[in-house]
Amino acid sequence: MTLDAIRTFLNASTPITSSLLVIGSAGLLALLTALVFRILISLQGTGTQKMEQIAAQIRSGAMAFLRREYMVIVLFALIAGGCLYIFLDTGLSYARIGQWGMPYTAGSFGLGAVCSLLAGFIGMRTATAANVRTAQAARTSLALALRVSFLSGSTMGMAVVGLGLLGLTGGLYYFLDIEHLSLAEALTPLTAFTFGASSVALFARVGGGIYTKAADVGADLVGKVEKNIPEDDPRNPAVIADNVGDNVGDVAGMGADLFESYVGSILATMLVGLHVTWTGDPGDAEIAALLPLFLAALGIVASIIGTFVVRIGKGSSNVQGALKNGMFLSSVLVLIGAYFFCQRLLPAEVSMGVFYAITSGLIAGVIIGMLTEYYTSQNYGPVRQLADSTKTGAATVMISGLALGYLSTFLPVVVVCIALAVSFSGGGMYGVAISAVGMLSTLGYSLAIDAFGPVADNAGGIAEMSKLPAQVRTRTDVLDSAGNTTAAIGKGFAIGVAGFMCLALLAAYKEEAGITGIDVSKPFTLVGILLGGMLPFLFSSMTMRAVGRAAMAMIEEVRRQFRDIEGLMEGKVLGDSARCVAISTSAAIREMILPGFLVIVAPLIVGYLLGREALGGLLVGSLVTSILMGMSMANSGGAWDNAKKFIEAGNLGGKGSDSHKAAVVGDTVGDPFKDTSGPSLNILVKLLHIIAVLTVSLFAMDGALATMF
Amino acid sequence: MTLDAIRTFLNASTPITSSLLVIGSAGLLALLTALVFRILISLQGTGTQKMEQIAAQIRSGAMAFLRREYMVIVLFALIAGGCLYIFLDTGLSYARIGQWGMPYTAGSFGLGAVCSLLAGFIGMRTATAANVRTAQAARTSLALALRVSFLSGSTMGMAVVGLGLLGLTGGLYYFLDIEHLSLAEALTPLTAFTFGASSVALFARVGGGIYTKAADVGADLVGKVEKNIPEDDPRNPAVIADNVGDNVGDVAGMGADLFESYVGSILATMLVGLHVTWTGDPGDAEIAALLPLFLAALGIVASIIGTFVVRIGKGSSNVQGALKNGMFLSSVLVLIGAYFFCQRLLPAEVSMGVFYAITSGLIAGVIIGMLTEYYTSQNYGPVRQLADSTKTGAATVMISGLALGYLSTFLPVVVVCIALAVSFSGGGMYGVAISAVGMLSTLGYSLAIDAFGPVADNAGGIAEMSKLPAQVRTRTDVLDSAGNTTAAIGKGFAIGVAGFMCLALLAAYKEEAGITGIDVSKPFTLVGILLGGMLPFLFSSMTMRAVGRAAMAMIEEVRRQFRDIEGLMEGKVLGDSARCVAISTSAAIREMILPGFLVIVAPLIVGYLLGREALGGLLVGSLVTSILMGMSMANSGGAWDNAKKFIEAGNLGGKGSDSHKAAVVGDTVGDPFKDTSGPSLNILVKLLHIIAVLTVSLFAMDGALATMF
Repeated sequence: MTLDAIRTFLNASTPITSSLLVIGSAGLLALLTALVFRILISLQGTGTQKMEQIAAQIRSGAMAFLRREYMVIVLFALIAGGCLYIFLDTGLSYARIGQWGMPYTAGSFGLGAVCSLLAGFIGMRTATAANVRTAQAARTSLALALRVSFLSGSTMGMAVVGLGLLGLTGGLYYFLDIEHLSLAEALTPLTAFTFGASSVALFARVGGGIYTKAADVGADLVGKVEKNIPEDDPRNPAVIADNVGDNVGDVAGMGADLFESYVGSILATMLVGLHVTWTGDPGDAEIAALLPLFLAALGIVASIIGTFVVRIGKGSSNVQGALKNGMFLSSVLVLIGAYFFCQRLLPAEVSMGVFYAITSGLIAGVIIGMLTEYYTSQNYGPVRQLADSTKTGAATVMISGLALGYLSTFLPVVVVCIALAVSFSGGGMYGVAISAVGMLSTLGYSLAIDAFGPVADNAGGIAEMSKLPAQVRTRTDVLDSAGNTTAAIGKGFAIGVAGFMCLALLAAYKEEAGITGIDVSKPFTLVGILLGGMLPFLFSSMTMRAVGRAAMAMIEEVRRQFRDIEGLMEGKVLGDSARCVAISTSAAIREMILPGFLVIVAPLIVGYLLGREALGGLLVGSLVTSILMGMSMANSGGAWDNAKKFIEAGNLGGKGSDSHKAAVVGDTVGDPFKDTSGPSLNILVKLLHIIAVLTVSLFAMDGALATMF
Repeated sequence: MTLDAIRTFLNASTPITSSLLVIGSAGLLALLTALVFRILISLQGTGTQKMEQIAAQIRSGAMAFLRREYMVIVLFALIAGGCLYIFLDTGLSYARIGQWGMPYTAGSFGLGAVCSLLAGFIGMRTATAANVRTAQAARTSLALALRVSFLSGSTMGMAVVGLGLLGLTGGLYYFLDIEHLSLAEALTPLTAFTFGASSVALFARVGGGIYTKAADVGADLVGKVEKNIPEDDPRNPAVIADNVGDNVGDVAGMGADLFESYVGSILATMLVGLHVTWTGDPGDAEIAALLPLFLAALGIVASIIGTFVVRIGKGSSNVQGALKNGMFLSSVLVLIGAYFFCQRLLPAEVSMGVFYAITSGLIAGVIIGMLTEYYTSQNYGPVRQLADSTKTGAATVMISGLALGYLSTFLPVVVVCIALAVSFSGGGMYGVAISAVGMLSTLGYSLAIDAFGPVADNAGGIAEMSKLPAQVRTRTDVLDSAGNTTAAIGKGFAIGVAGFMCLALLAAYKEEAGITGIDVSKPFTLVGILLGGMLPFLFSSMTMRAVGRAAMAMIEEVRRQFRDIEGLMEGKVLGDSARCVAISTSAAIREMILPGFLVIVAPLIVGYLLGREALGGLLVGSLVTSILMGMSMANSGGAWDNAKKFIEAGNLGGKGSDSHKAAVVGDTVGDPFKDTSGPSLNILVKLLHIIAVLTVSLFAMDGALATMF
């Protein structure tokens, strides 16, 4: 059984490296698919000269942001990589992977960062090429526009899973086959691969979140409120920055976030798998460690197949339905394949249990997405009631929206708890970990439907600015509306995924730390859990204030341009869009430093002062409040956004009514909630877990303070 | 040592019962002091006929609410007491206290409920007698008005600590001396004393919180906004209900909340003390169990002395300073006395450690209060910046206020963590528990400064409605402003106290449950902590919606009266105040049932399904998020309130400006935050802990689900 199963399965004499080659091929397949999709996009027309010009501005703005951001990331990576080399690869704890001075950890970290950066870069290049082509396609038909924008999302999705899986298996192959480490030795430095991905995600999500909302609020407040010009009006110099922001936040930010969850869950499950003893056969651990990779490879194939069913018939506008079909198909394919894998590869004692664990993760992810949709879509009661509360003014909109967000945590938490219980009873802590991989296996597809939204949104903006016929804008609006819903679902999914990845990492942390448990009835652990619970509050406060300051800088710049540039208001000359982009970029980069520093330093301080078990407490505390706050913020924000849209669609007095004004207040508060602070909490909690797993070997069991008292 | 120490100390042959007599005398002393204060208040004049008439309306409204509320509580107590009798005193687990069928547990429960109800009743009667006398005193001087209102607060404070301590020692004396139970046997049913107090607190805090905000919002929205008449205008029929609400929320609600914390902390420390083994002498446990009672008795004496220094000189208006002097004096007295007790009663090995634990609790309480003041008072940066954010409209006020609340959790949590570490290193889990008693020892005084605020507030209302000279209103405004600050500090203190009481109860829970730890790396415990963390979100959502619905009912009634009652707007006839009071009362009673049910059922379900350790996880999870959410809500709310007042004082454009309108939105959102949902979280978390301690013997170690899987 076990490794022999792989031997038979692959008909190979070196089961592990052969497996890695098979799995790596799936990663390569994903990248090839991404390349094909990218070429298909290029074949589309780019429309009028005006459209091309605007698209070029957005693209150059996006690239300007990426350039600045990547410079900071590279700088950070050099410092962090250096620290990793000094503390983990040499000297202080060189014994941990057997060979002194080899930059295994630092190298893995760099590889992880590079893969994530590359995925983000591909996603951004594709999205900023596809936006104008989607606008152009919308001149033909909605079906074609959907095709182009969805191809763009799929390119991103495939790039993320391809680079993630290829990077992981490549690193592993190198350590195992070339450097001759054992699987356990190889996995320890590979943890840093996830840390690399996390570092990029921190900057992409937090910085991107601040960027996008500073631009959005700046553009809206001066343009729509003060100058009374419509959204996406070319006279507003912040509009380009706003359109860049959609890409920066929802493409690069979301992509980096989910890239991190993807590789983090796989790696954590491998680490936990190493300690599995199912039948007493030492091969158990190796097969348990390889299973998440097989599952991810399977998910890539399922996602590619799912992509092909996303199409709508002529005259139909059921975009949402088409997207759901693909999701359904790829999920079912993964389940069938997982059943087959479990039966063929795992010992009979655990095969069904592990399969149930995978299933529970996959289903929990889908249900959390559906619940998010229920609480944030205009089609259901909660948003309708929220819209109703605009009748009595802004204060009741705030109270109702916050209450809605709080309430919306109830069912998802129950779902998480059930999935947790099912997966644990199915396969112990390994079951919990692999359920996260199950949830993420179809990421290639689910990221595609997330990442198509901003492309559609941009296409609408380009159509507006290029003064294309109203019919075009109507078509892009259909896409945009579907994109808004999928974006909300994506946020809920990303939170659920982050939670499950952290559960997997928590299991890995326990193994790495060599602790028997995390007993919160011990005072130091309780201190850890209190501090951990507080961090999301502190972090949210920082990011919300950051958006406020960055938006202020943007508002002043836009006001200045309208004041100083003659003929701007009359549409005779163009504003200085590049300067707006630069301001948002600088503010975002500057504002993400302090919260970033907090996340990295907090676990180190707690680990050093209070010891390993207290650090475990910190992780659990941060996990609980991050999930709850993140979910409530994302859902409050999404609901406020859609309540406003519901009124703008002509309900309750429509645009310009008092209800609408109250709804706009809700939406403005909701923007940093759902696009900055909420999503940033995912990064916070994941990064805390990864840093803890990575650095726990540096801390004494009891911490420095314990020796003092 | 140990019991011999008491023998020498009290020169008595029966150390435990003699101790109880001494301690009980302190409780009696508190009640006598309350009586004297109450008589002193009665000796003050009640002013004009108009003033008396309005005061009578407020008083009868308050009594109407209490009558309705108490009826519900009695009904609830009969059911809960019956359940306690059936499940804990007889049959199912009669073995726990040795004698079958004696209603020890049910009786203790009833005693706790009666003591709390009585304290609330005394507080309300006094406050509604003192409000008009304070207004009358304000016609003479500010100093006299402070004296009357502070006497009223002190009456409440003394009634709470007196009834708390007397009830506890009386019950204990009965069990020990008359029923001949051992100390351990006696303490088990006495836990239900706290449950009785908690049940009253649940209704008083949640119901009172809903009542007061429904009346407040209803009065303001129709009166100030729609009809454009000033605050406290006698034409507005909801004004009486609003004034009743101040008493219901801030006197009865706050009093019941702190009564619960007071007896809960003492009892939890006694339970933990029973398991102490300092020197190997079995008397260790008994002395450890008695120490919190001695400390409470000491605190009563210190509080009474502190009361006497609260006075201001002629011409001075430094009310805040006078109140702080008393706080400082009584704290120092407690510390000196505690040092003496520890030295004389405890074995030398632990005496200083326990003293440090008590000190850390007392100091932490004071610091948390000061931090709350910093974040919510107009005199410091945070509220000034918040007021500044009104310039850019309601949305930025919301964002800044929420961010302020989130940020304000950071330092208090650090303070709690430090106190936790110090008290644990000083005296183990016993040290943690007794630090809560240290924090609460001066409750007689700190509750006095909380409970004087609403009296001053009412006095202002009466002065306004009776059309007294402007100078009177100016004086009551000085008192009111000081009262607002102490109310905010009191809220911070109440949260800190609830947190420490829960830490004490958590230690007691572990002993009662017979579990070795609460290991959150076990999946069921993790499920418990996730569910526990989610409950405060769900609970807040319920209470916020409840306020919304209740306020709506009030708004409609006030609108109806202005529409249907001819001559009301012209001031020719009076509105139907009683009906407004009745509507607020009914709504509050109705709306508190569902959240109340949730709190009681949740721990029972988790305990039954997932077992004792998971129930411990539920407690920790709820503790973490309750403290954090409660603190952030209370501070956001307090800051919004004071930012509005800062603008009304003539800053940033003053009343009627756009800034003011934006600030009013913040204040309206802040009202349910700081007066309903935030404070209710104290009750939620304490009640969960008490129910868990009380019922844990009913649950299997592993829970029903564990046997299924």
